[in-house]
Amino acid sequence: MRELIKERGSVYCNAGAWEKFKAQLETIQPSKLFVLTDSNTRKNCLPHFLQNASLSIHHEIIEIPAGEIHKNINTCEKVWNILSSKGADRNSLLINLGGGVVTDLGGFVASTFKRGIEFINIPTSLLAMVDASVGGKNGVDLGMLKNQIGVIRNPLCVLVDTHFLQTLPANQITSGFAEMLKHGLIHSQAYWNSVQSFSITDINKAEQLIWESIEIKNSVVTEDPTEKGIRKTLNYGHTLGHAIESYCLEHKHKNSLLHGEAIAIGMILANYISFRILGFPEEKMEQINQQLIGYYSKEEFNEEDIKAIIELLVYDKKNSHGKVYFVLLQDIGLHKVDCEVPNDIIFEAFEFYKNLKSA
Amino acid sequence: MRELIKERGSVYCNAGAWEKFKAQLETIQPSKLFVLTDSNTRKNCLPHFLQNASLSIHHEIIEIPAGEIHKNINTCEKVWNILSSKGADRNSLLINLGGGVVTDLGGFVASTFKRGIEFINIPTSLLAMVDASVGGKNGVDLGMLKNQIGVIRNPLCVLVDTHFLQTLPANQITSGFAEMLKHGLIHSQAYWNSVQSFSITDINKAEQLIWESIEIKNSVVTEDPTEKGIRKTLNYGHTLGHAIESYCLEHKHKNSLLHGEAIAIGMILANYISFRILGFPEEKMEQINQQLIGYYSKEEFNEEDIKAIIELLVYDKKNSHGKVYFVLLQDIGLHKVDCEVPNDIIFEAFEFYKNLKSA
Repeated sequence: MRELIKERGSVYCNAGAWEKFKAQLETIQPSKLFVLTDSNTRKNCLPHFLQNASLSIHHEIIEIPAGEIHKNINTCEKVWNILSSKGADRNSLLINLGGGVVTDLGGFVASTFKRGIEFINIPTSLLAMVDASVGGKNGVDLGMLKNQIGVIRNPLCVLVDTHFLQTLPANQITSGFAEMLKHGLIHSQAYWNSVQSFSITDINKAEQLIWESIEIKNSVVTEDPTEKGIRKTLNYGHTLGHAIESYCLEHKHKNSLLHGEAIAIGMILANYISFRILGFPEEKMEQINQQLIGYYSKEEFNEEDIKAIIELLVYDKKNSHGKVYFVLLQDIGLHKVDCEVPNDIIFEAFEFYKNLKSA
Repeated sequence: MRELIKERGSVYCNAGAWEKFKAQLETIQPSKLFVLTDSNTRKNCLPHFLQNASLSIHHEIIEIPAGEIHKNINTCEKVWNILSSKGADRNSLLINLGGGVVTDLGGFVASTFKRGIEFINIPTSLLAMVDASVGGKNGVDLGMLKNQIGVIRNPLCVLVDTHFLQTLPANQITSGFAEMLKHGLIHSQAYWNSVQSFSITDINKAEQLIWESIEIKNSVVTEDPTEKGIRKTLNYGHTLGHAIESYCLEHKHKNSLLHGEAIAIGMILANYISFRILGFPEEKMEQINQQLIGYYSKEEFNEEDIKAIIELLVYDKKNSHGKVYFVLLQDIGLHKVDCEVPNDIIFEAFEFYKNLKSA
C-alpha cells in the first residue's frame, strides 16, 4: 500500500486508500459532512466518490463553477454562506473533490470558517495529485495575482485515486505533467529520466511515477514547511511561469494557458537563465529544453508582452524588499535559491525561447 | 514594567512599552510598514502613535470606515488590494491601530496576505485592550453572524497604552468594562469586587485593573489556545450576548448595542440561567445582576425578538452536532462548559431581565 503517514495530511494512494478514508471518518465522527465540487467534478468524479466512500452520514454537495477565474474571495464567500446556512459547525467536515482550484479554495474556506474546521482533499487532476496534495498551501487569487490570499494548513488526510485521471482531458494531463518534470529537474537526473516515459495509458507505471513525485514534494515540504529555504525550490520555473499565466489570463489577445503549460515555459526560461547565471551545462540545458518544447505548444511573446510580464514579477510571493528572486539550477538536482536576475537576461531568455524549434 | 513575555504575542503596557515596540521593529527590519486605522483612530490615535513610535522607515497609512458593520470580507478585500498595490511583500509588517474591529480585521488580513505576514496590535479601545489583545483570535463577520470567518494567529506583539483611552467616548469605556466584569465572574470574587471601583479618571487604578484583566485572559488562553476546554469560559454571557448584538444590528427597530452592552445583558441572562440550572446562589445572583444593571441601560425584548434571538444561537461557533451549548457558573470563578439549556429557561431568563429594576 502506498501511504505517507504524517501527523496531519497523511496521503493514501490507490489500493486500500478508501478504507483508510472511511476509517478517518469513523474516528472523527463529523457533525455534518459537506462535499465541495466544481461543475466538472460533480458530473465526472462525484459518482466514483460516492460509490467508494459509501457514506453512512448525511452529506450536502456544494458546487462552484469550474475554472481558475472563479478561484477568488467572492466564491469563498458563497461557500461560507452555504456552510453557514446549512448549519455547519466546528465539528463539520469539508471534503474537497476536484482539481487545484477546488482543493486550494476549499482548503482556505475550511481553514477560516469558524476559525478552522477539518477538511480532506481528494485531488482529481494530475496537477492537484502531484502538486497540491502535500504541503498544506491553500488560498485564492486576488484579481490577476495568483494565490495572494491564503494560509498554510494541512488537511486531515489526502486521498489519491488515479482512477479519477481517466476523466481528465489530455491537456489537463499534460498540464499536471509539468510539475512532475519540475520535480525531476530539482531532484535528480534519475527521476527526470524515468518521468519521460510517463503515459496515462500505462496505469501501473503512471501510478509509480505519480507516487514518486508526491514523495519528492513531501520530502521537501517536510524539511521546510514554511518556505524559508529548500521549499523555495518547488517554485522552479514558477517565478516567470506564474507571471505568464496571470498575464495570459488577463489579456484576451493571448491564449489562455493552463497552469502547467505556463510553468513549462517558465522552466525553459529558468533553464536558460540557470545556464547564463549559474553555469548550468549548456548542452544539457539545450537537450532538456528540447524535451520540454516537445510536450508543450509554443507561445509568442512580443516586447510589450515581455515588459508587462516582468512588471508582474514584483508581486511574486517569494520576493522581498522590492527585489525579485529566482530559484536557479547549477545542474539537475543542484539548486540555488534567492538568485537575482537582471532584466536583460530575462529578455535574452525569451529570445532563446522564441528561437527554440518546436517538435 | 508590565509585560507578558511569550513566544509570540507578548504584551507590553505603558511604561517602557514604546521602547519594546521600537526594539521589535529593529529586530525584524520589515521591508515595508503599513498602519491600519479606521476613520476615528486615524484622527484621534495616529498622532500619539506617530509621536511615540518615531518610525525611521517609510510607512503607509491605510484607513477603513469605523464601525462593526464594516468588519466584513469586503473591507478585507479592499485592504488586501491596497497592500498589494503598495508593494507589500512577505517581510512587510502591518500595525493595527484601533479598537476590536481594526485589530480583528487587520489580524485576519495579515494572517492571510501571501499566506501570512507579521502584524502588531495596538488596541486603542478598552474592549480591545482587555479582550482582543491576547489569544490570537481574529476575523470578520459573515452577514449578521459575528466572527464567522477568521483564524487563530498571534501578533508579533501587543502594545497597550492606556493614554488612548482618553480619546474614547464614555459608552465605549462602559462597553469594554463589560469584559472586565466578565473576567471577574469567571475568575474570582476578589477581582469581581475590586473591578467595581474601576474609574477611567483614576489612571493608576484603571491601569492596574486593566492589566489584571489582561493577565486573567492570558492565563486562560495560554492553558487552552484552541478552545477545547477552559477557553470556552471566556464566552460567558456571549452565547446570548452575541445573538442579541447580531439581532439588534440587523433590526432597525432595535437600539443598536455596543458589544459590551449586549454582553452585559447576556451575562445577566447567563447568571439567571446558572442559578436555575447549576444552583448558582440566588441571593448572590440577584446582587450581581443589580450591579450589572446599574452600569448598563435596559433594553426591551418582546416574544418575537426573543424567538428570533434563540434561532440565532445555532450559529454560535461553540455549538456542535445541532446542539446549543452555554458556559454557566456554579458560583463566581466556578464554571462549567458545554451546558445544554432548554428554551423555556431562556424565556424565563428574559422574563427575569424584564423585571429587573434599573438603577
